[in-house]
Amino acid sequence: MNIETITFENNTLRIINQARLPGKYERVALTSLEDVINAIQSLMVRGAPAIGIVAAYGFYIHVKNLKAEGPLPIDKVVHSADLLKNARPTAVNLQWAVDRMLNIYKINENKHNLLELLKDTAIKIHQEDKESCERIGQYGARLISDSMHILTHCNAGILATGGIGTALAPVYTAYKEGKNIHIYVDETRPVGQGARLTYWELTHNNVPATLIADNMAAGLMHMNKIDMIIVGADRIASNGDVANKIGTYGLAVLAKHHGIPFYIAAPCSTFDMRIKRGDDIPIEYRPDHEITGYWQIDNMNYHVYNPAFDITPADLISAIITENGVINKPNKKNIQSNLKPEEFVL
Amino acid sequence: MNIETITFENNTLRIINQARLPGKYERVALTSLEDVINAIQSLMVRGAPAIGIVAAYGFYIHVKNLKAEGPLPIDKVVHSADLLKNARPTAVNLQWAVDRMLNIYKINENKHNLLELLKDTAIKIHQEDKESCERIGQYGARLISDSMHILTHCNAGILATGGIGTALAPVYTAYKEGKNIHIYVDETRPVGQGARLTYWELTHNNVPATLIADNMAAGLMHMNKIDMIIVGADRIASNGDVANKIGTYGLAVLAKHHGIPFYIAAPCSTFDMRIKRGDDIPIEYRPDHEITGYWQIDNMNYHVYNPAFDITPADLISAIITENGVINKPNKKNIQSNLKPEEFVL
Repeated sequence: MNIETITFENNTLRIINQARLPGKYERVALTSLEDVINAIQSLMVRGAPAIGIVAAYGFYIHVKNLKAEGPLPIDKVVHSADLLKNARPTAVNLQWAVDRMLNIYKINENKHNLLELLKDTAIKIHQEDKESCERIGQYGARLISDSMHILTHCNAGILATGGIGTALAPVYTAYKEGKNIHIYVDETRPVGQGARLTYWELTHNNVPATLIADNMAAGLMHMNKIDMIIVGADRIASNGDVANKIGTYGLAVLAKHHGIPFYIAAPCSTFDMRIKRGDDIPIEYRPDHEITGYWQIDNMNYHVYNPAFDITPADLISAIITENGVINKPNKKNIQSNLKPEEFVL
Repeated sequence: MNIETITFENNTLRIINQARLPGKYERVALTSLEDVINAIQSLMVRGAPAIGIVAAYGFYIHVKNLKAEGPLPIDKVVHSADLLKNARPTAVNLQWAVDRMLNIYKINENKHNLLELLKDTAIKIHQEDKESCERIGQYGARLISDSMHILTHCNAGILATGGIGTALAPVYTAYKEGKNIHIYVDETRPVGQGARLTYWELTHNNVPATLIADNMAAGLMHMNKIDMIIVGADRIASNGDVANKIGTYGLAVLAKHHGIPFYIAAPCSTFDMRIKRGDDIPIEYRPDHEITGYWQIDNMNYHVYNPAFDITPADLISAIITENGVINKPNKKNIQSNLKPEEFVL
């Protein structure tokens, strides 16, 4: 099965509605700014790179819609871009992609082919991400040996990107190379990206996988049943601290305790060099019912704490796998050398 | 609200059906061996001490039922005891309680007041547990200071015992003493003993509590928001290794990394001095649907790993709080000194 997370064909943006997976496979067309923001906020599309791609297409669609209505003041475009960028606060790829689109808009505001240029840029962002995934896969697969058991958390796979994933790219690449591997999938409470998305896409690609509750990973590590941990990232500070799905930090501490390599896989668009350290990354808090809903205690006045992300300090990270190579023991200096100069400019 | 987890009135054993909490509060009478085994296996009653108490009453009820039918060969009683003891494999209090009942049976088999002696022993086991909880509360509360934030996992409270709990006994006692405390409650996947039971009983007793997903505890520790961790135990090996609800081991590792005290609270009936170390404790594996059910992926042929317990090595445990006192840095020697001689005899 060929999973196409995001398609843009005949000028129409379509996504898989990931909020319904795996019970229902449904493709949804997004035809307005509101559609796109709603899709991002309701987790119909999620995963830092995928959000960026959809937002880029969304920006183009929105400008096209507005232009059809009449003259378009720049203030209105900037305001729309802000709405898009603020749809979710943690993943920086969203801001990065929208700023890149806005920049193209500003430079070419009065050109007759503005819409074509915007469309081409969105397609380029999509295509670049696909290629980044491939390269992350190639670099990351070198770290994977035959017979390895690999733990992943949340979903940083095909469904989170425009390609074969970030954390799962090395997995798919190693599997294609014929390596005999097995993946432990954290269900990833509260939203279940592991149980609903990662397990689904791995098994659709025939990669052997076992589903566990998040709190079972530690015991497996104690029994030497996990050889490597790979997860994605929603934002990486300039010192290498990583914001990723809640639960990531705990896995990094457990990995250190057990001497297990702990890898982050992410495209360079995930780095935010304006931010010094992880504690400065804004963390999104999600509604209580994501936790209470399951237990049918929604109406019982529970006090709930539900951050969507946590911060993993750089010193717990063995390496960050990017499309430009593997950054071992990440710090400001080796991150800067790894990023191409244009990554700093929006 | 006075929560009575287990009652024995007018010769009738009744339990709260914990599988239905907190949505439905329902008391169920258990009138046969089958009732009792089913209640234990389906988690209508759970928590190591509570299982032991219910099994003791169950043994009495079963012998009474059999005696009413005619002569009762000892083989049949031993067989029934084995069925009870094997209802769940990890918690040793179950075996301990049934063996104690069986011993009374064997010693008094031919006495006219056998049934009275069995009934009295079951009531005594129940009463002793209640008193143990009180004493655990008193010893444990000394470790709790004003303004502490305490994390607990699973349910080791009123609903898990014949009294005010094991892990939660120090919490209730400190709260009664007027200490201003706040409890973080792990929801405890997959079965949700934290979300369904611990939060429910804490708030019914007015103790301030916040519900979190299990994977959120690490981030709270990183932010210095957790001052202490207290959990219960299902079995403690003679070297101090502890089997407890899956997820406990990971919390112990995280506690060590963050310099947070990690306490086990359990009655002496939880120690199994026949067992050398944690890895020798049998671990129960539960059905897949406990994990897959939530995500509505039951019918999707998921490969699932679902252990109900994990092992925390003694060297990660700051102390074990028992009814006989606090065992700091537990090891075989100080555990033996803490247990009264009669604890070794069944």
